[in-house]
Amino acid sequence: MAIEAPSRRRRIEDVASGLFRERGYAATSVRDIARALDVQGASLYAHVTSKEDVLWSIVDRAAARFEAAAGAAERATAADSATDRIAALVRAHVGVITSDPGEASVFVHEWRALGRERRARIADRRDAYERRFRDAIADGMASGEFALTDPAIAAAFLLTALNGLATWFRRDGRLTPDRIADHFVDLSVRTLAGAT
Amino acid sequence: MAIEAPSRRRRIEDVASGLFRERGYAATSVRDIARALDVQGASLYAHVTSKEDVLWSIVDRAAARFEAAAGAAERATAADSATDRIAALVRAHVGVITSDPGEASVFVHEWRALGRERRARIADRRDAYERRFRDAIADGMASGEFALTDPAIAAAFLLTALNGLATWFRRDGRLTPDRIADHFVDLSVRTLAGAT
Repeated sequence: MAIEAPSRRRRIEDVASGLFRERGYAATSVRDIARALDVQGASLYAHVTSKEDVLWSIVDRAAARFEAAAGAAERATAADSATDRIAALVRAHVGVITSDPGEASVFVHEWRALGRERRARIADRRDAYERRFRDAIADGMASGEFALTDPAIAAAFLLTALNGLATWFRRDGRLTPDRIADHFVDLSVRTLAGAT
Repeated sequence: MAIEAPSRRRRIEDVASGLFRERGYAATSVRDIARALDVQGASLYAHVTSKEDVLWSIVDRAAARFEAAAGAAERATAADSATDRIAALVRAHVGVITSDPGEASVFVHEWRALGRERRARIADRRDAYERRFRDAIADGMASGEFALTDPAIAAAFLLTALNGLATWFRRDGRLTPDRIADHFVDLSVRTLAGAT
């Protein structure tokens, strides 16, 4: 039981991720989640206290995965150019999305449905995450790698483009995650470094 | 009355747009819309037959505005380079979003909440709209302006980045719509044309 309980909880979250991604958090009830798991709503409440609690688990885990991947990307490229750092950050971001697009999609689209306090915590973490991109872009501007005038708008433009992948990525699509990462790194570096 | 009725309906749609953008379509009830208009829910039903009907009006009008703006951009640049055509398409897209960010946000995020038949019609129109970008990108590849390998993924990347504006644009923000359009045209052209 000590082993089964967390994996049961994880299964609930995965099914909830899929439903939230497909029809949205607000349009999904605990009863819907129970039905998709083929259990009674009442028995689900032994594992979860509320729908918002399930959303929080999914969003918190996704945030931690994005943060860990970006941290590793930054450590691996600390001595490299801003271009290489951005390339590593983009590849890490794409990797997090393609390894669990349901979770990533809920993180991207549904975090605002969290209660006030949790929403504020996630807003802070999203800001800190975006700052990694903005700082790398600003460093690239300082080094002359990127001829841009506004690192904040460039970071917002870039991250929005990357997050779109959470909506359209399909495991059975025509492109593998690695090939998508190659394209996204290429497009991102062009966006920042390209001469116009 | 013949004059008042359409503007009353439009006011309902504008208030609904704001609520749908803020809290999502599924989480907004007809009662919420009535409350925001300071009328009784029952009196609202004299003007709208269902919440989905209001959503349809908003999404249909937004789609028509995007189509008209893109058509005008294409006509104005028919004899120009693919780069100029993309720049005009991007500027038109940004203009549609910044002139009514609430409507644009509902179009971008909530169209999937439409009933099956209407959703299919909007999916077709979205595909046709994206094709304008994909075709301009493919033309730029053929002319040697854009050194890309996959016009579909470049178009998806670009349109997602542009649509992010519907989420973060604020009329009282630090950048004017024209300045945002300048930045977005610059970033978009870099994305496609930049050498890496």
